[in-house]
Amino acid sequence: MLSKSQISLVNALHQKKYRKENRLFITEGIKSINEFIQSEYVIDTIYCSPAAVPKLVKFPQKVKLFESSETDLKKISTLNTPAEALAIVQIPLHEELNIESLQGEFNLLVDNVQDPGNLGTIIRTADWFGFKRLVCSASTVDVYNPKVVQASMGSLSRLKVYYTELDTLISQTRLPVYGAVLDGSSLYKTSFEPEGLILVGNEGNGISSGLLPFITHKVTIPSYGNAESLNVAMSAAILCSELRRQQVE
Amino acid sequence: MLSKSQISLVNALHQKKYRKENRLFITEGIKSINEFIQSEYVIDTIYCSPAAVPKLVKFPQKVKLFESSETDLKKISTLNTPAEALAIVQIPLHEELNIESLQGEFNLLVDNVQDPGNLGTIIRTADWFGFKRLVCSASTVDVYNPKVVQASMGSLSRLKVYYTELDTLISQTRLPVYGAVLDGSSLYKTSFEPEGLILVGNEGNGISSGLLPFITHKVTIPSYGNAESLNVAMSAAILCSELRRQQVE
Repeated sequence: MLSKSQISLVNALHQKKYRKENRLFITEGIKSINEFIQSEYVIDTIYCSPAAVPKLVKFPQKVKLFESSETDLKKISTLNTPAEALAIVQIPLHEELNIESLQGEFNLLVDNVQDPGNLGTIIRTADWFGFKRLVCSASTVDVYNPKVVQASMGSLSRLKVYYTELDTLISQTRLPVYGAVLDGSSLYKTSFEPEGLILVGNEGNGISSGLLPFITHKVTIPSYGNAESLNVAMSAAILCSELRRQQVE
Repeated sequence: MLSKSQISLVNALHQKKYRKENRLFITEGIKSINEFIQSEYVIDTIYCSPAAVPKLVKFPQKVKLFESSETDLKKISTLNTPAEALAIVQIPLHEELNIESLQGEFNLLVDNVQDPGNLGTIIRTADWFGFKRLVCSASTVDVYNPKVVQASMGSLSRLKVYYTELDTLISQTRLPVYGAVLDGSSLYKTSFEPEGLILVGNEGNGISSGLLPFITHKVTIPSYGNAESLNVAMSAAILCSELRRQQVE
């Protein structure tokens, strides 16, 4: 049985403040935990139902493993239906983002996205399309929010996510910036240069007005119907796909 | 103040069984309600905060409008943070799906999608790309689930959504079927014919095994990273976008 202090530590990690203080975050589900074990992340603790322990891949001896009942897992889970296992993972101290590392390829910038599900899905999509990192504005939802981790489906274990002031970053890189907006040129007539940045914005307001002057290519996914906008994760996915399509042509 | 019976009717509509029995569903938020008012849907009742009433577009006299306090809206809302207004809308009795109406264009088929957010986002995306309807397998999540309606961002008011047995439907239409799978030909090497069906499947299992023989073109969105799969709504969006791109070329 889990102690009260164990339960309250895990529950504290549901909140950003305590994740930051403790440099720890939560991931749930055997599949995602296994992906973090096999990544550069350091696992602190695993709470796992006895039946599911054999499903875990080999992990370092220093990881604390607690076999936990369904009742216990329910007490610490962030999900309505708890998974078979929950892990506490260390928030890595990334080296600072090196501007030069952005040259010669494409990177994805995320401005002020608020919905955890959207950010998680963008991470999963970026991983699918082979992006190595994601750069978010400081105002973007915390990547270690359990809902972001969940929606990323393990892809967070493979991508580096940075938070920074995007205006400063963009002006330092001098790369072309392809911004997803509602009044730009058709994506289907856009030719991507060999390197650059793809920028997507907030769910309701799009890209911040302060960043608009930095966009060198305003790009719009043509609409054929009456929806007012596309979901930001959809826009990001469509832009990334079109970029890769052009690159293989 | 809302009566107990009003509150319990609305709350009953959070469940599929009662939506079906009463042929009613819920939509929340002024923007979405206004889109349903301006559509072919019939609004039954609107619960609206007094301050938000002027934001409603003109609606037929027979619609019952109840000015409701924040406390009342909280009692009936399906959201953590209730919107300013909630409407009860009639579930339409669509005419049966006419097979001939599918000819000469593209339509989107959804097989066994379970997550309401995914189905809602697919509806929004289908609307953006000018699809007139969506055809779902009987096993797909209920389109009138409040979370589907919410995620569709008003697009449900413009698209007809049908539920049917997809195998029967496909064999009747004899149209080419472009199925999103993990082991098909590259989407970027696929040429869409002038008419056809785009088929996407379940979140965990993809397209049902029973439907696989009906796929005439197995299509895969090429992966450049290590994510195991793409979210189904992302796949649908990328396929629809590539279709439209080819059509304007």
